[in-house]
Amino acid sequence: MPTPPHAIGFTLDPLDRMSEKRDDEQFVASLRDDPATRFLLFVNNVPLFKRAAGHDPLFDAREAALLGAPRQSVLLGRDADGRALFAHALDASADSVADALPSNPVEAIELRPVAMQGLVAPALGSALGEARSMLDWHRRHGFCANCGTPTTDAGAGWRRVCGKCDAQHFPRVDPVVIMLVADGERCLLGRQKQFLPGMYSALAGFVEPGETFEHAVYREVLEEAGIRCTEVTYYASQPWPFPSSLMIGCFARALETELTVDMNELEDARWFSREEVAAMLDGTHAQGLSAPKPFAIAHHLLKAFVDGPVTG
Amino acid sequence: MPTPPHAIGFTLDPLDRMSEKRDDEQFVASLRDDPATRFLLFVNNVPLFKRAAGHDPLFDAREAALLGAPRQSVLLGRDADGRALFAHALDASADSVADALPSNPVEAIELRPVAMQGLVAPALGSALGEARSMLDWHRRHGFCANCGTPTTDAGAGWRRVCGKCDAQHFPRVDPVVIMLVADGERCLLGRQKQFLPGMYSALAGFVEPGETFEHAVYREVLEEAGIRCTEVTYYASQPWPFPSSLMIGCFARALETELTVDMNELEDARWFSREEVAAMLDGTHAQGLSAPKPFAIAHHLLKAFVDGPVTG
Repeated sequence: MPTPPHAIGFTLDPLDRMSEKRDDEQFVASLRDDPATRFLLFVNNVPLFKRAAGHDPLFDAREAALLGAPRQSVLLGRDADGRALFAHALDASADSVADALPSNPVEAIELRPVAMQGLVAPALGSALGEARSMLDWHRRHGFCANCGTPTTDAGAGWRRVCGKCDAQHFPRVDPVVIMLVADGERCLLGRQKQFLPGMYSALAGFVEPGETFEHAVYREVLEEAGIRCTEVTYYASQPWPFPSSLMIGCFARALETELTVDMNELEDARWFSREEVAAMLDGTHAQGLSAPKPFAIAHHLLKAFVDGPVTG
Repeated sequence: MPTPPHAIGFTLDPLDRMSEKRDDEQFVASLRDDPATRFLLFVNNVPLFKRAAGHDPLFDAREAALLGAPRQSVLLGRDADGRALFAHALDASADSVADALPSNPVEAIELRPVAMQGLVAPALGSALGEARSMLDWHRRHGFCANCGTPTTDAGAGWRRVCGKCDAQHFPRVDPVVIMLVADGERCLLGRQKQFLPGMYSALAGFVEPGETFEHAVYREVLEEAGIRCTEVTYYASQPWPFPSSLMIGCFARALETELTVDMNELEDARWFSREEVAAMLDGTHAQGLSAPKPFAIAHHLLKAFVDGPVTG
């Protein structure tokens, strides 16, 4: 498996997804019954961890059964050790699972802080991200968008089918461009109201039907900051499971510098010098401003900007 | 607006989408009533053309009203001349519209041959692609996937809202990797059963939740052709409105050469020499094999391979 060039969160996916086996019900059932198989368990989109050994999200079948009945199951794949991994959404509450295992407390912790703080190994973090996106999709797509009838899952959890109109529905993956716009030694960062106090990040926005990456970058920067940009180059991509984005990290060069900030989308946006960004990444900024942590692709765009001239 | 580096179909999008104005109903209504505004009209996902002047898809309000009532309207944006463009799906049939305009026959022609044959200018082809994706999404998403209730459109056609559970639904954009895998002077091409006879193209597949582009390329090539690849590099992206894909064109280098073709996905896959691909692009292949036309991103991946060494 190729190693991603950067240690971005949720990108280290070592699972063999065995997608050609998803419709083989007998095979999937045999995996489910295999004693080596492990289960990632979620309650209301929040993953569960066994706390006796740090933060362990891998439950065996016996433990999973003690915590609650699965209302949704997805075959994630087979890991590097050859063990199958399933994701289960449980009919349970964080309270009901807490003491369900003998002498091993179970805790529900949102995936975002788990990833931000690196509480699990990167490969497990990626599997938890895949699981969260898939289970959240099932949770919010129980009805046929074409005719309104309740749907049922198929293909080991990888699609939903409508028994009335025969429509097939597949999980969403929503592409989002996130771009660091440079003007020589300065780059453009903005902050949304819901960001942590003092945090600034690269601008971002959903790709719309009819757009290339490059057009989406151009449009979003013009809309949010009032400037035109050019020389859009691709840097890296990242699955972002909140709920199911595909982040497309890019660099671009500003064609103008006077900002007109869209205050509906952003609380502020301004130019930052290379030195200022370096201090924000290091946590040494004089005014206490900060940048996203390494689990976010924005961190790596900023770091690449600090480390070398991106545009001329 | 930046010019895409390659003349790929559906990528020349010069529209100002005015997305910040979509919820301003008075503004949108004023655009609709502006005599300069033009309408792209569709019947069952097929665009209409006035034939008196070649293939003209731009209808004014008076003409649009003669052809049928809109069952769905989407504000596409403002073109380079400052004219607003709307997409309308009509309650009409290809037969009913044919003679509805005095001395100007109206013809319904599928967008795919329109684009393949270059029947309209690239900018109009891109607008038709955006329109087709948006209208098809409305057509197949009239119900809330969360609760099954009929939804209504909002934001000038850019979202659907549920009056019962308050869910908001946005148009789908489905990322697809399409990759040319090279082994020195040879590249890997496959054909699906539904391809035109003799046509071969680059392998492709949908990006799944939890994957980067690079992982999706690796997985798809392994699944479809049984070989591992590395050095995945991004080339260009393309909106592909059949119905709403975002093609992500990549190159990759094969780590092995003995193919195991997945006959469920492909009818055939094999290695092609640079000379053979050049002949397929030129239409001079000795056995009559062919490659995709320039409106498809695959053509440009193949052409780049023929024009220069991509991998070492």
